[in-house]
Formats: sequence, C-alpha cells, structure tokens
Amino acid sequence: MSINRRTLLGAFSAAAAGLAGLGNAAMGVAGSARAQEAGGRRNYRRIATEEAFSIPEVAEALGHITRTAWDVPGMRLLDMIYGEERPPLGQRFRSGLLDLAANPADRLQTMDAHGVDMHLLSLTSPGVQMFDADTAVSLARVANDRLADWVRQYPDRFAGLATFAPQDPERAVQEMERAVNTLGLNGFVVNSHTNDEYLDERKYWPILEAAEALNAPLYIHPRAPSAGMVAPFQDYNLTGAVWGYGMETGTHAVRLMMSGVLDQFPDLTVVLGHMGEAVPFWLWRLDFMGAPSRGRANKRLPSAYFDRNFMITTSGVEDPIALRYCIEKIGADRIMWAIDYPYQTTEPAVRFMNEAPISEKNKAAIFHGNAERVFGIKAA
Amino acid sequence: MSINRRTLLGAFSAAAAGLAGLGNAAMGVAGSARAQEAGGRRNYRRIATEEAFSIPEVAEALGHITRTAWDVPGMRLLDMIYGEERPPLGQRFRSGLLDLAANPADRLQTMDAHGVDMHLLSLTSPGVQMFDADTAVSLARVANDRLADWVRQYPDRFAGLATFAPQDPERAVQEMERAVNTLGLNGFVVNSHTNDEYLDERKYWPILEAAEALNAPLYIHPRAPSAGMVAPFQDYNLTGAVWGYGMETGTHAVRLMMSGVLDQFPDLTVVLGHMGEAVPFWLWRLDFMGAPSRGRANKRLPSAYFDRNFMITTSGVEDPIALRYCIEKIGADRIMWAIDYPYQTTEPAVRFMNEAPISEKNKAAIFHGNAERVFGIKAA
Repeated sequence: MSINRRTLLGAFSAAAAGLAGLGNAAMGVAGSARAQEAGGRRNYRRIATEEAFSIPEVAEALGHITRTAWDVPGMRLLDMIYGEERPPLGQRFRSGLLDLAANPADRLQTMDAHGVDMHLLSLTSPGVQMFDADTAVSLARVANDRLADWVRQYPDRFAGLATFAPQDPERAVQEMERAVNTLGLNGFVVNSHTNDEYLDERKYWPILEAAEALNAPLYIHPRAPSAGMVAPFQDYNLTGAVWGYGMETGTHAVRLMMSGVLDQFPDLTVVLGHMGEAVPFWLWRLDFMGAPSRGRANKRLPSAYFDRNFMITTSGVEDPIALRYCIEKIGADRIMWAIDYPYQTTEPAVRFMNEAPISEKNKAAIFHGNAERVFGIKAA
Repeated sequence: MSINRRTLLGAFSAAAAGLAGLGNAAMGVAGSARAQEAGGRRNYRRIATEEAFSIPEVAEALGHITRTAWDVPGMRLLDMIYGEERPPLGQRFRSGLLDLAANPADRLQTMDAHGVDMHLLSLTSPGVQMFDADTAVSLARVANDRLADWVRQYPDRFAGLATFAPQDPERAVQEMERAVNTLGLNGFVVNSHTNDEYLDERKYWPILEAAEALNAPLYIHPRAPSAGMVAPFQDYNLTGAVWGYGMETGTHAVRLMMSGVLDQFPDLTVVLGHMGEAVPFWLWRLDFMGAPSRGRANKRLPSAYFDRNFMITTSGVEDPIALRYCIEKIGADRIMWAIDYPYQTTEPAVRFMNEAPISEKNKAAIFHGNAERVFGIKAA
C-alpha cells in the first residue's frame, strides 16, 4: 500500500510544505543506499540488531525434530529449513543461517555490498527452546561459544546476543552469567514462550533477575503462538510471521507489563522486534483499560513500563509511516534498526532507513546510536 | 503517554513549524468541545458509530447466564453488568445500556450536553451469541424491533445496526433481510466469534452474502477471545478490552482477509472499531508475509482486501497519533468517529476529535460524512 499523497497533504495541511519531503521519500523517489554512497561517503554506521544465525549442531538437532510425529505450531517452518526435502526458500534460509559457520566472508560480503557495518547476531528461532533441558543447555553453550568466536574474530562487524535454556532456569542463569562475564556477549535472545509458558511466571524470574543484574537486554524474538492460543491461527497458515508471531510476542510483552513483574526488575531492558509487535499502537487503550486498580496486578500504567523497560526494532516492518508513528509515540531513542537476515533481504532494509523521512539525528540514533548505548557496543 | 514534543520536532524538523499545532492540540491545549461551541456555533455534525444499548429481555437472559456454572471468557464482565451483585461500574454500564428502554430522553440529554447529533446504535456485546439458537433468533427479533422503534421515533438522533443469530445462519439471513427491508436499519453488528467459530467458515457464508446483497455493512465488534486462543489471556485479567478484545477481533479480520472469503463477496463492507484493531499498523508485514502464493488462500494482497472491504472507527482509541497514522495509511475516507457509549464517556471522545490535528475536511469526513455514506444515513 503506497502513501496516498493527497490524503497525506489533506490531513496535515498546516504542515503540508514541510511534509512534501515525506511524500517523496515514502514513495521511493529518493535515491538508493548505494546511490547515496556512490562517492564513497558513509552517512551512518549501520548496526542491524535482529540478525539470525545457526550452527550445524543446532540445525541437525532441529532436523531430528522434523522427523518426529510431534505436531506443533511452527513445524512447517522447521520442515522447510531443517527437513530432508527443502524447497528453494528453505534452502536459501538454511544457507544464510549457516553462512557464518561455513565461511564468515560470505556474510561479510553481503554486509559490505549494502553498507552494513555490524550484525548483532542471535541464534535463530526457536533457539534451543524445543529441546529437552539437557540438550538445550548443552547446545546453548556450544552456540554461545561459536558466537563469541565470531565476535572475537570480527569485533567491528559482529556483536552477539546469547542463548539460554529457559527449560532449566538455574542453568540458564549460569549460562547467562558466563555469556556476559566470560564471553563478553551483549545481551540475550529468547524466542517467546517455552513449552507454552511465559517469562512472567515466577519460575522464570531468576532469568529476568540475571538479565537485569548483568545490565544486558533481553530480546524477545517471535515464535509460533503457544498451544493455548494457536487454534485460530492454524487455518490459512497464520501461525507464522504473517500474523501469529506478532500476536504471540505482543501478548508476551503485555503479560510482562500487566503481571507487575517489571516492578520486581525495574532496570530490565526488554527488546521487541517488528515495530514493537504493535504494542506501541495499543498504548492508549492499554493505559485506558489497564490502569492500576483493584483486580489488576500492575502498579503503573502500561505505558510507564513500556517507557522504562522496552526498546523496539524495525525488523520486518519497513514502513515509514509506522516508523514515524513510533518516533512520535515512544521517541526515537527507543528504536533500533534491524534487517532480520537471512529471512528478509538486506537492500530494502537499508534503503528503508536511508530514505526514512526523519531527522538526521534520529536516523543516526536508530541506525547505530541506540544499539551502541543499549547493547554496550563500542562506538566506531 | 503524552507526546514528547522534543522528539516530535526532532523527528520532523523539516515540518517543525507546521507541526507545532499538532503538539499543542495533542497535549490538550486547545479548547474543549463546549468552549468551541460557546457561541452556539456547530462546526460538525457528530455521528457516533459504536454506541451500545441493551433491552430488558436480553439483560435478563444474560443474567440467567451469570447464574450458571458455565465458565467462559468474558463471564467477568457479564457478572459485573448482569449479575445480582453489581459493583458501581457495572451498575453504571447497566444504566447506560438500558437508558433508551427506560427513557430515551436520558441519553439524548447526554448527547445534547456534548454536541453529539446521532448515535448509531448496536445491541451490546456479546449480543445474542451466547444463547441457544432459538433464544438467540427470538431475542434478536425483539431487539431489532425495539431498535427500529427508537430510530423511527428519533430519526435525526438514532440510526441502528441490526443483530442476528449466527448460530442459525438461515434464520440469521431472514432476520437480516427483515432488518434492512422492513425495519430500515443501517447495517449489522456481530460480536466476533460465535461458539468459537469465525465468519470465514463456509457455514457462515450466507451471512456475508446477505450483508453484501443488502448493501449493509457488518460491524465486527469485539468479545473475549475464543476458547482456542484464550489461555494466555486468562492471567492478569487480559481477556477484555485491555488486550484480548483486540487480539480476538484483529484475528477475525485477518482470517477474513487471508481465507480468501472476500474474493467471494467483493462488495462486502466490514467495519472494525478501535482504530481497526491494530490491523492498519500491521499492513506492511501482512503484505510482505501474506502475499498471494502457493499455500495461501488469498488471491490479493491483504492490504488490497483491507482497502476494498474494511472501514475502521476510533472507538476506544482517543489518540491523535494513532489517528494520524491511520489517515496516512488507509485514508481519512475510511475512518469514522465513535464514543463506545456507555463504556467510555462522551466528553473526552468529542474533545479528542474536536482537537484532532487534522484538516477540516478530514474532520468532517470522520465526524459524519463517512458514516452517512457507508451506513446510508441521510445527510442533515
């Protein structure tokens, strides 16, 4: 859907002259990333913050899952990437996920071709969350070690979010501490629910406590909806990125806000992809209907938690109108750029932000400044 | 959450001068509805499009439900309004819902006090959808007759959306035809799922066909999530308007788009409240991930269905930033104003739209022009 320029100008007639630039940029009139940099000039450091990888050991273990009778939401994507007969798209995803393990130069070449300075890497969804606890703990260690190797090898090109096994909170905390204190990684990734449970449940509080204590953000990446909510998504292939991911992950975030668990961990930073999984769009109604009251567990307005505890990224939503909404609603200092490599392609993600009709200052913050601050990435 | 004026201006520095007015209005600096009209001048006809009522017969039948052992999402709200021991808020809702049945002058007085010209009335959620088919068919007829009486009595103040019983699609169609052809009502309301089923299922196609043939919009109003998705909403009281309503109703809308059912009924108009239940915010990702392809049932881009078949209202989201997003994304001719009486109060809903930082033309369209066009309400 393209911007209706007539509508745009009609709606904001007072600002019409100033907004004409938005219309042009949003309609793709402005030059591409490469054109802008034709003279070799680099306008921004570009740190992409939701960039996936796998390792052969995890890919093999997920392959074993595809050969079970286990019928679970999200199995279709696993089949596609880790099954024995892979369609071309599944093969493309698989190659992209395993490119670092095969030859880091392949990924660096893609990054260089589009002016991407750094990938903040995370083990791809569903991480180790579909394995039994022992397998999960073991594979998380292997994945984090491998990740730390790449970061050590290319400190200017890669940073990393560590994986852990929520199935065993005690060993998860041990791995989280090792990942930050020993391996020097930049935060954590969790793929929404684990065995249909959410992180607000008390058994998972040690994980939230550790992330807060380590001053390391927790990126809640989507996965297919939990069993207790998946039924309406099973038809028409809606469990995935088209709709189910957002409903699942947004609901996870709202549970963290409305459970009051963030009153226990006021300094925890949670990161949501996909323009905040639409939570920013709901903030007015969340506040109106979910203000603290008898019968509610939250001590603050939902938006107060969102302001204090959440960052969002642009992964998978390359929409200048949605970006502008989020800047107005939550502020440019709460938004980070992402590609979602290899699931989305690099060029349009770079072009989207290059051409975004926002101030240079905000563009720098979203392209790299916020990621440097939040994930402790050394400024260039 | 208030607008961060610094952020706002930073983000759109090119348009900063023009946007200063937005900052002021959004922060509530502009005058109230009543102040604007102090001199008796009426700027806009105001038609509110999601205004609830009940009748004693339906309230009594819902009261019987509260005295069963039936444990179902949404029972808490039923208890509050129709139970024997009602808290003050439940009593206030009940009085508001039954004010027309008691004395229409009460509601008219509230409308007059805030300059509201017309309520487009609909039987409040869950309508007749929790009754057995015979009871539902019978109560729908009674409710529609009563509604038509008020509309006949006050043709300049009330219009109405008819209720039907999806439990029995054949008799639903008969009632839909009677409601439009005999009673002269303006469209239909349905409260999302019926017995955990959605309108894309083939048994409900006659209902969609009838709405299209009668050229009468179908307003999909929220109710608590269906049994197959409600589990994560059961904690922290999330089944209702704070979060579950939007996930349920947005999912219903996406099922209509992604099932391809709208290819069968290209002229059907579906209305969504609550700024489109956030579907407008997801359109970029819906299109990217849900384009027509092998394995997908939709023949068009999701946004193409949304453009052609959907209208939205502002009920329950009095947020100028969200309004502006929707105007830019889907166009002002697709948005209608609503209060959600008696669940939300009239004054802030009027003030929100009076002060909205949008053009006069768009304000007129959203306040009344679109509702006149879409619901066949005679222009004043």
